[in-house]
Amino acid sequence: MLSVPPLSDLVDTGAFARDIEDDRPRLECGVFGIYGMDDASAVTVLGLHALQHRGQEACGVASCDGRRFYIEREHGLVGDVFTGYDLTQKLQGHSAIGHTRYSTAGGAFIRNVQPMFADLDQGGIAIAHNGNLTNFMNVRTKLVAAGSIFQSTSDSEVILHLVARSRELRIIDRFMEALRHLEGGFALVALTRKMLIGARDPLGIRPLVIGKLNNAYVLASETCALDMIGATFVRDVEHGEVVQIDENGLKSYKPFDARAARPCLFEYVYFARPDSVVNGKSIYEVRKAMGRQLAIEHAADADVVVPVPDSGVPASLGFAEQSGLPFELGIIRNHYVGRTFIQPTQHIRDLGVRKKHSPNRVALEGKRVILIDDSIVRGTTSVKIVRMVREAGAKEVHLRSASPPIMWPDFYGIDMPDREKLLAANHTLEEMRQMLECDSLGFLSVEGLYKAMGHNRRDPETPQFTDHYFTGDYPTPLTDREQALDESSSIGQLSLLASSN
Amino acid sequence: MLSVPPLSDLVDTGAFARDIEDDRPRLECGVFGIYGMDDASAVTVLGLHALQHRGQEACGVASCDGRRFYIEREHGLVGDVFTGYDLTQKLQGHSAIGHTRYSTAGGAFIRNVQPMFADLDQGGIAIAHNGNLTNFMNVRTKLVAAGSIFQSTSDSEVILHLVARSRELRIIDRFMEALRHLEGGFALVALTRKMLIGARDPLGIRPLVIGKLNNAYVLASETCALDMIGATFVRDVEHGEVVQIDENGLKSYKPFDARAARPCLFEYVYFARPDSVVNGKSIYEVRKAMGRQLAIEHAADADVVVPVPDSGVPASLGFAEQSGLPFELGIIRNHYVGRTFIQPTQHIRDLGVRKKHSPNRVALEGKRVILIDDSIVRGTTSVKIVRMVREAGAKEVHLRSASPPIMWPDFYGIDMPDREKLLAANHTLEEMRQMLECDSLGFLSVEGLYKAMGHNRRDPETPQFTDHYFTGDYPTPLTDREQALDESSSIGQLSLLASSN
Amino acid sequence: MLSVPPLSDLVDTGAFARDIEDDRPRLECGVFGIYGMDDASAVTVLGLHALQHRGQEACGVASCDGRRFYIEREHGLVGDVFTGYDLTQKLQGHSAIGHTRYSTAGGAFIRNVQPMFADLDQGGIAIAHNGNLTNFMNVRTKLVAAGSIFQSTSDSEVILHLVARSRELRIIDRFMEALRHLEGGFALVALTRKMLIGARDPLGIRPLVIGKLNNAYVLASETCALDMIGATFVRDVEHGEVVQIDENGLKSYKPFDARAARPCLFEYVYFARPDSVVNGKSIYEVRKAMGRQLAIEHAADADVVVPVPDSGVPASLGFAEQSGLPFELGIIRNHYVGRTFIQPTQHIRDLGVRKKHSPNRVALEGKRVILIDDSIVRGTTSVKIVRMVREAGAKEVHLRSASPPIMWPDFYGIDMPDREKLLAANHTLEEMRQMLECDSLGFLSVEGLYKAMGHNRRDPETPQFTDHYFTGDYPTPLTDREQALDESSSIGQLSLLASSN
Amino acid sequence: MLSVPPLSDLVDTGAFARDIEDDRPRLECGVFGIYGMDDASAVTVLGLHALQHRGQEACGVASCDGRRFYIEREHGLVGDVFTGYDLTQKLQGHSAIGHTRYSTAGGAFIRNVQPMFADLDQGGIAIAHNGNLTNFMNVRTKLVAAGSIFQSTSDSEVILHLVARSRELRIIDRFMEALRHLEGGFALVALTRKMLIGARDPLGIRPLVIGKLNNAYVLASETCALDMIGATFVRDVEHGEVVQIDENGLKSYKPFDARAARPCLFEYVYFARPDSVVNGKSIYEVRKAMGRQLAIEHAADADVVVPVPDSGVPASLGFAEQSGLPFELGIIRNHYVGRTFIQPTQHIRDLGVRKKHSPNRVALEGKRVILIDDSIVRGTTSVKIVRMVREAGAKEVHLRSASPPIMWPDFYGIDMPDREKLLAANHTLEEMRQMLECDSLGFLSVEGLYKAMGHNRRDPETPQFTDHYFTGDYPTPLTDREQALDESSSIGQLSLLASSN
Repeated sequence: MLSVPPLSDLVDTGAFARDIEDDRPRLECGVFGIYGMDDASAVTVLGLHALQHRGQEACGVASCDGRRFYIEREHGLVGDVFTGYDLTQKLQGHSAIGHTRYSTAGGAFIRNVQPMFADLDQGGIAIAHNGNLTNFMNVRTKLVAAGSIFQSTSDSEVILHLVARSRELRIIDRFMEALRHLEGGFALVALTRKMLIGARDPLGIRPLVIGKLNNAYVLASETCALDMIGATFVRDVEHGEVVQIDENGLKSYKPFDARAARPCLFEYVYFARPDSVVNGKSIYEVRKAMGRQLAIEHAADADVVVPVPDSGVPASLGFAEQSGLPFELGIIRNHYVGRTFIQPTQHIRDLGVRKKHSPNRVALEGKRVILIDDSIVRGTTSVKIVRMVREAGAKEVHLRSASPPIMWPDFYGIDMPDREKLLAANHTLEEMRQMLECDSLGFLSVEGLYKAMGHNRRDPETPQFTDHYFTGDYPTPLTDREQALDESSSIGQLSLLASSN
Repeated sequence: MLSVPPLSDLVDTGAFARDIEDDRPRLECGVFGIYGMDDASAVTVLGLHALQHRGQEACGVASCDGRRFYIEREHGLVGDVFTGYDLTQKLQGHSAIGHTRYSTAGGAFIRNVQPMFADLDQGGIAIAHNGNLTNFMNVRTKLVAAGSIFQSTSDSEVILHLVARSRELRIIDRFMEALRHLEGGFALVALTRKMLIGARDPLGIRPLVIGKLNNAYVLASETCALDMIGATFVRDVEHGEVVQIDENGLKSYKPFDARAARPCLFEYVYFARPDSVVNGKSIYEVRKAMGRQLAIEHAADADVVVPVPDSGVPASLGFAEQSGLPFELGIIRNHYVGRTFIQPTQHIRDLGVRKKHSPNRVALEGKRVILIDDSIVRGTTSVKIVRMVREAGAKEVHLRSASPPIMWPDFYGIDMPDREKLLAANHTLEEMRQMLECDSLGFLSVEGLYKAMGHNRRDPETPQFTDHYFTGDYPTPLTDREQALDESSSIGQLSLLASSN
Repeated sequence: MLSVPPLSDLVDTGAFARDIEDDRPRLECGVFGIYGMDDASAVTVLGLHALQHRGQEACGVASCDGRRFYIEREHGLVGDVFTGYDLTQKLQGHSAIGHTRYSTAGGAFIRNVQPMFADLDQGGIAIAHNGNLTNFMNVRTKLVAAGSIFQSTSDSEVILHLVARSRELRIIDRFMEALRHLEGGFALVALTRKMLIGARDPLGIRPLVIGKLNNAYVLASETCALDMIGATFVRDVEHGEVVQIDENGLKSYKPFDARAARPCLFEYVYFARPDSVVNGKSIYEVRKAMGRQLAIEHAADADVVVPVPDSGVPASLGFAEQSGLPFELGIIRNHYVGRTFIQPTQHIRDLGVRKKHSPNRVALEGKRVILIDDSIVRGTTSVKIVRMVREAGAKEVHLRSASPPIMWPDFYGIDMPDREKLLAANHTLEEMRQMLECDSLGFLSVEGLYKAMGHNRRDPETPQFTDHYFTGDYPTPLTDREQALDESSSIGQLSLLASSN
Repeated sequence: MLSVPPLSDLVDTGAFARDIEDDRPRLECGVFGIYGMDDASAVTVLGLHALQHRGQEACGVASCDGRRFYIEREHGLVGDVFTGYDLTQKLQGHSAIGHTRYSTAGGAFIRNVQPMFADLDQGGIAIAHNGNLTNFMNVRTKLVAAGSIFQSTSDSEVILHLVARSRELRIIDRFMEALRHLEGGFALVALTRKMLIGARDPLGIRPLVIGKLNNAYVLASETCALDMIGATFVRDVEHGEVVQIDENGLKSYKPFDARAARPCLFEYVYFARPDSVVNGKSIYEVRKAMGRQLAIEHAADADVVVPVPDSGVPASLGFAEQSGLPFELGIIRNHYVGRTFIQPTQHIRDLGVRKKHSPNRVALEGKRVILIDDSIVRGTTSVKIVRMVREAGAKEVHLRSASPPIMWPDFYGIDMPDREKLLAANHTLEEMRQMLECDSLGFLSVEGLYKAMGHNRRDPETPQFTDHYFTGDYPTPLTDREQALDESSSIGQLSLLASSN
């Protein structure tokens, strides 16, 4: 019997549906913050545009003028939500944080949209969070039992309540005390009346970088947001580091026990933008290297290398370079076809509609095609693309994944299906080849991926990256999950609060 | 120096402006609840239609199907917010509560719109509140210091936090413990998974009635909401009474020390609908009696009795009956002219536009007019109406108020201006007559009002009604107000929490 | 077999439903115009507020700055559509016309919302129209055959096309030539670059008045719109008169053969606001006179006179005065319950919900009630009110109609049901009494109505008013109707165009 | 003095602003039609998704069930406008046409959004139009003088009026008569109760193709719309051909004098999607050929070939192939940054914000870059990109345009700036090189472009393509333009109408 309570009794109006057919892993968030600049909210909106790929369901900005906070949050793309010419009138001040969101934990309700805000007795605090806490339910249950009222079902609100209940005097100390209760992966930006705070979990699973724009400090999930606003890259926030930015500049704290970093490999494989540099590595270069390594591991006798756009392009360029085969745009992506694509009747669904991708016949007809995708999750999209390529006239289709087989679910902020739906977790390579209807199938090896990342090999003792989706090696405890599986869970619900006194 | 902190650092987007020209006192709310009926949310919406006069800025409904809660809240009139034919799909269940709102405490933000909801560890609770707490800031400050996070600036949320932090086991006991921390006037409806709760403050300042519709129990601010849905009136919730309605029927609690009731006189003078019966008295009859008494106290040599519609009509009928003068509709109310009435330029404002009232010349021309309004607050509307009547040809205008001079502000849920703006608080009768530009002016006396209410006289020891706006005799402590005026306020902020452990 | 073609092949999106339960006759429109004033569009919006009772489904304003026209039209009440503070920015100029609409002809599509506009080769023209043309289909069919493209299904667009095709040189002559093709009832305002035009049909069926506001001329359906903006009444536009208002002042034309006026009686019975003066007669006084006459014709042994609010109030005051019985507000109108009132399930519909009216028990209980309504159409509302009054405790209910039995449909701009649904057209008085469940029933006589209007008797040769709904005596040909009934209609479709060349 | 009148006196509300900074030529429309299929409107919406690149400001669909027409038109992207699951309920029938729009002629008003509809006396007709008429004003002026009322300022409405006024008996003959009055470029789809019509101007300037989906015929601007819905390509509609599709299948007409085709080259250079086949030529292959030819004409000593995405990619692949240099994604396109990108203050504008493109530093740093764009119009975008590439570390930037210098404006449906703003029309190559701040600059030659298109050379007598933007050789008269320039224009305004009688 399941001992985990439902997250909330409340069904708010205003939820929105996900496109359940979609077969992409999804990140839940991008975050951005700036301190010490006129029109801070407008710069934040610009930064969020560059982070739109990290979350397209909702977005929000909170700003502060040193005394009051201003906040605006909506479902929709950044460009649809923040359109008004009165933006800087409505969201005043010299500091701001922002958030783009795809929901994993929490559900698609407007009250889950970030940034979130709390009035503390020392003044307000707003936070925006990328990542996922693995002990969220555990902490939330204790807080509710102690009388905290949650307005959202988001794991981010837990952090606010922990800060609110801390008895430390300085807000930065209250913030760090709150972080020490958390397990999982997180990159956080927080805004108080006097400062901007950035924080990364002890393993640095989720990314966060520091930039400067004239005299203002900037925090962002990826460097592409710095490029967008013309800011210069300073450095990554380190794993386990908390940075405090105020009128005295930047100050660094290390509130956690020292550990080696283990950044998430999927940022490199799929999430980050190709023009970003994450933890010192160019995403574009790394993906080309994955393609070259894939060509070494899984060559094929073929005529053309064709990417599944857009994410498969850099690996395809690497594969083409290594293999000497020509690179061709055999598939065209429909950039305008989004979540709202309509398929009202079975009759329409049966037409074989090309949603996100269309075949470029001239580049496929009569060809032996090496088709390269960044990864294969459930395989439902892959088989459609293989079929489409074949129907467009390809003689052979050799499918290649520029990352290893995905075998295990993620709990750190990536929205993946359950294990029973992960293709590679449930089938042999030959079964997969038949299911995906391709002439040959190849995945980059885990060791090959580490090579592409610049390491000789994966260190099995202290792996250099978070890679559980490929290996099952989770980098942190999975408290909520274990508790959900554990019938006899009877944890003393108030220990947390006791310890925070 | 003022020691009260600002309510919140947060400026949310989505506030809306009040019509600052309006010279009416306003009630903040009407509440409604039903337990044990199919389509409970739809019945609740019907009930809210009948309570629309108690709050036109926003409304909301929360329903419960025994397991989950469903909630919808919006700015706007009930008929504009709850239009969908999918209402009962969206707001499911056999019990529901609803709320219409005009904001006094809290400001006009969407997050202040009620009902409000909290997940407790025993399950959710939703509340809707009519009235105002006079120690709201005091309790809120203590709760924030103890780590509670407030999402609204409404005094109603204080009640939720007190319930959440109570250590009582039964939810009804937690609810009553919370109520004992409150000062002021309140009529509350609350919904849990298993029950509907109604409560009235110890003095019964705000009204609340019980009805039955087939087997279902109904709670409502006024009997007109019972009439709207075809329910029968059972009785008033008594002052200081808490009623618990569940599958076992209705159960009554008296959590407060016994005191005599002091219902608010302004419900009779202005707020309640004429077809309602409040605390056993017909509003229509009482208002006619006020008019008759007014005719006795302030007769005039005149030709016609003309009401300021709509609220002045019953008193005018009484006055006409007592005086033998004909009753005429000398002023027509523009029912379609609401909050959004446009006056874009000074040029337009100078035109002398008739907003809410138009003169019916044929009933005024050449006449000596007795003009009857329910009350006079700042006098800004009254003078415009007097002028309009005179410009329409009236020979004389004798202005009469069917209630005594308003001298003191209210803190129990009526939105009145500060004392310095109350006409009667700052001027003699003759000054007022000159300012209102009328030929004679008369107010009903306090003793006359008590007579119209069916009493021989006001009992000065234990007055039968809340009447401070006329007398300055406030029925409860005014903790927040005193604290705001008291420079040296240094209350031990955690005593409340200590006592609730 | 019906020979009339469907009005249009087009089903536009954006239609809206009527409240089919409603048992009121409805007017289709109010019109307003102003020439020679700053912020003309804002003044027009104010005027439309006062004409809101003449049409609540949609509204629109067109303004002109002497060179360009600006137009805005929407579904909704005036106060909901014209809210913006940028109104005079968007709708510029010193002249403007406006329209409130309830749709009879044309259907509820946005492209039918007025004012309508056309670019002529001499410059643009906008028109707004109150009334209904009885040869609309006939003219439209001819125009379509000659190549005119209609964008709406409104009869008003016919006028624009006739103006556009006229070969007269001056726009006022083109306008008058167009009017000569029309049959039916109309009050029109039109705006060109240089002038404001007003026109009334040859019988003056629909009303239109002239006012002045400083130096600006105003046209409006009723005088209450003049009062709203502070304008003074000048005179009625005469029946069959066209007025041209431009920088040289007002000029009058009489383009039709001279005939006696026959204004519509229903304006007096129900449509016009009580504070309006129509064709020199005060609506309020006339209705009181109807009530007095009704008391003479249909007295009853009773305790109280109770109006069906709001339209029954003046007649009730007259009845009470004549009969010496007390006037009581036994029924309260719910002003907030409009078109959107929700009744989602049969279960809810069966509750006996009080929609527009609530009983005021204290005024009804144990009483013999004379219940007065302005008119009885289908009787569906009346029977509900009689039942409601009885359920509230009335001992007897004597229903009185302050107008004669309605026997015939209208074709001049009043939305009434077909003849088979008109109660009085299909039943004897005793049958009606039984169906309406009242103890006695009385209608004002036609002669009594003419008396209340100030005439000794109805002149059967040339009746003083349009009164076909009571008498069947239609004042104009009913071309479209006859053609629809005439199987062998084979009219030369191009004769009109020939004549206009 | 200018003799052309303003298009309309009317300023409607609801216009929307263009992004005036944008430096792309724009097409005004894509069209789609289908006959003989269930859910025709839903298939049409799918087709419009694939044509979204041809117009992103507005879209519309009209369907017909054989008797009535249904229409919906809105500003916005197809995916935003047509989201409802009730689409096929609202837009019923077995035939439909659709339109995506970017406005050149007509202005950005909702009443200009297509399809447009007219009730004729034989029944309704809806049309959707891609292209631009060069004698639009001339014809419109005559029609207005003859009494036609225009509801839009779009040139498409002219066609409807010509059809409406034709005295031919069959609708297809009326349609063809109308077309014979037109000059310019057009691809039209039209829908009547019984048939779908497609038409292409005598030179075939704008494209239109025929497909089949099961038994249904499909018309679309590009083959990519056929691929989207799974239809098979049948053939292009020929230049000067009118096709009539009804229950008897497809019938072809040739209403114009025979001439050689001259399709628009810009479809190949920029507009059409790379996976489309236009007039028998693969866009992708043609663009690669342009790149190869460009490498032959304008080689450079460099390290990498970098496209300006997305339109420069195929030419870059061709250039890289021909030159042997590596192809690199040195610039990343921000797909989410659209029209609504916010730049509220000068301060923000000065930041050097990267709107549509971001640099991929790792691919540019220290490199000699050949930068390839499809074309250069005003040069304002090009110089920003050159700077951005240089700031990202490129040692040299060699800019190449895969099309010849643009010297002349277009009047056939491409939105280009006036001649004085066309960079190449006003500067020498060296001036341009300096203004664009590049190390070298090269344009594909006109002869090279014809080679890439598969011809040995441009035929100067009867050029194979419309190419006036490069050559000044306009393929049709420019009546409106000449009339606007001709002071003494005094054309007999009614000759057209005379001839159509």
